[in-house]
Amino acid sequence: MNASQNARFAYIRGQIVPVSDALIHVSDLAIQRGYGIFDFFKIEDGHPFFINDHLDRFFESARILKLQVPAQRDEIEQAIHQLIARNEMPSSGIKLILTGGYSADGYAPGESNLILTQHALKLPTNEQVEKGVRVISYPYFKEFPAAKSINYMMGIWLLDVLQQERAADVLYYHDEVISEFPRSNIFMVDHSGTLLTPSRNILKGVTRKNVISLASRSMTVLEKDITRDDLYGAAEVFLTSTTKRILPIVEVDHRVIGNGKPGPIALGLLTKLLQLEKQDKGIKVA
Amino acid sequence: MNASQNARFAYIRGQIVPVSDALIHVSDLAIQRGYGIFDFFKIEDGHPFFINDHLDRFFESARILKLQVPAQRDEIEQAIHQLIARNEMPSSGIKLILTGGYSADGYAPGESNLILTQHALKLPTNEQVEKGVRVISYPYFKEFPAAKSINYMMGIWLLDVLQQERAADVLYYHDEVISEFPRSNIFMVDHSGTLLTPSRNILKGVTRKNVISLASRSMTVLEKDITRDDLYGAAEVFLTSTTKRILPIVEVDHRVIGNGKPGPIALGLLTKLLQLEKQDKGIKVA
Repeated sequence: MNASQNARFAYIRGQIVPVSDALIHVSDLAIQRGYGIFDFFKIEDGHPFFINDHLDRFFESARILKLQVPAQRDEIEQAIHQLIARNEMPSSGIKLILTGGYSADGYAPGESNLILTQHALKLPTNEQVEKGVRVISYPYFKEFPAAKSINYMMGIWLLDVLQQERAADVLYYHDEVISEFPRSNIFMVDHSGTLLTPSRNILKGVTRKNVISLASRSMTVLEKDITRDDLYGAAEVFLTSTTKRILPIVEVDHRVIGNGKPGPIALGLLTKLLQLEKQDKGIKVA
Repeated sequence: MNASQNARFAYIRGQIVPVSDALIHVSDLAIQRGYGIFDFFKIEDGHPFFINDHLDRFFESARILKLQVPAQRDEIEQAIHQLIARNEMPSSGIKLILTGGYSADGYAPGESNLILTQHALKLPTNEQVEKGVRVISYPYFKEFPAAKSINYMMGIWLLDVLQQERAADVLYYHDEVISEFPRSNIFMVDHSGTLLTPSRNILKGVTRKNVISLASRSMTVLEKDITRDDLYGAAEVFLTSTTKRILPIVEVDHRVIGNGKPGPIALGLLTKLLQLEKQDKGIKVA
């Protein structure tokens, strides 16, 4: 086992412990009733990217699902930096999970359990970025889309469908209006050169926010309802997430998008996003 | 701590362990992604009620959510009887949980973890049965209604709404068609004396099945779509579940049902259900 590949320590219920001791009693409401929220951010050279955005969203998810975070924000930041120091995984991701806590009757929430774990990153391959990926759509929306809840039942249930369809991901839609992938947001460029992204039934991703901000400097960006037909007729389509950054999509539901190749706007925004990551790390960009 | 009130032992990953050792690693997909199924049945004098129905449904829930049960059915039955023998809780309930297992990447299922826990029962009070209860409705349906999944996010999120509304439970509906409570099925009697219960977007309860079977001997029973308006105009309304058996409902969304008192059909079926439980225990009924 390589210390740079696998985390040796985790934070659980107020303590840093060896990963093998990161255990939760089965009375926790995450196990009993799938009740919990989380967040996830990238680390590079010990620097957590866009940490304030992620912590803002973590506390907002907790608020939406009526969970009390059992630590102050600065205590969580300290725990993050302790974990980074002890795990020695320069390029990695950290996941914060907040559960419904130990429940006396298996239904009513208890005092929430806070768990921090660190993980190796699985970034998109060069081939995926250069050639783009294929996706399919599926009718679904999450019950609390604005909260990053732990409910990924549909996404996981669809994993073997993705494999059968040789698709990289599944895009949810409801009444023909598209929303999001299980773990990513979607963008399209129409033939007038406007960048569009759904506004409803989505989790507002940190990368989504950064892409909107970067794109707004040079093009019109609209957050609005997009139908599957709008998407099929797009000039470009791409998805965004913390680990995937900007990943071009060249096929949706077996329909080729544009000329079937990653588009210039997606690739241009990816370059700008990489610069923004450098800025966030405090490196001056020329 | 009284041994007849609290379980001392649980079954986890193939072993009977003290309850305090019933721990799961945080990499389990129940904690990571809310992915798992369960079932629950009552015990009286060491006898598990309608155990075959519950095990059938447990395996069916696993099948729907594409989970492998890591034990044969007779091994699970043995574990149930071992737990009953060691916990000495003559009147109680046993919960079987099957999770998505330890996931290497926090998303793909691993080898499922099987957990059995025993619990004190919280039966309805005499007052609730004699006076009936009030319920409210809320627009929602589960993504996999036919599987007893661990996703109770909406039901738990609504707990404080129930408290504010002084309601005993919340009935889900979608496009005005009612489906179920988070943990119970619903029945209504119309003014022609027909017993009606929803057929779609529900978990088919074991008590629901028994009530349909018992009622069919003396009245017409229909499984069909029921709207909220149908329900408001019902002669009788009641809910069914393993722990609640048959609980009369006298108010829905602040509208009084019938004469505002538990109806004769609900109470008659409750008597028959209690007889059926005795039969299941092997006691001859006069």
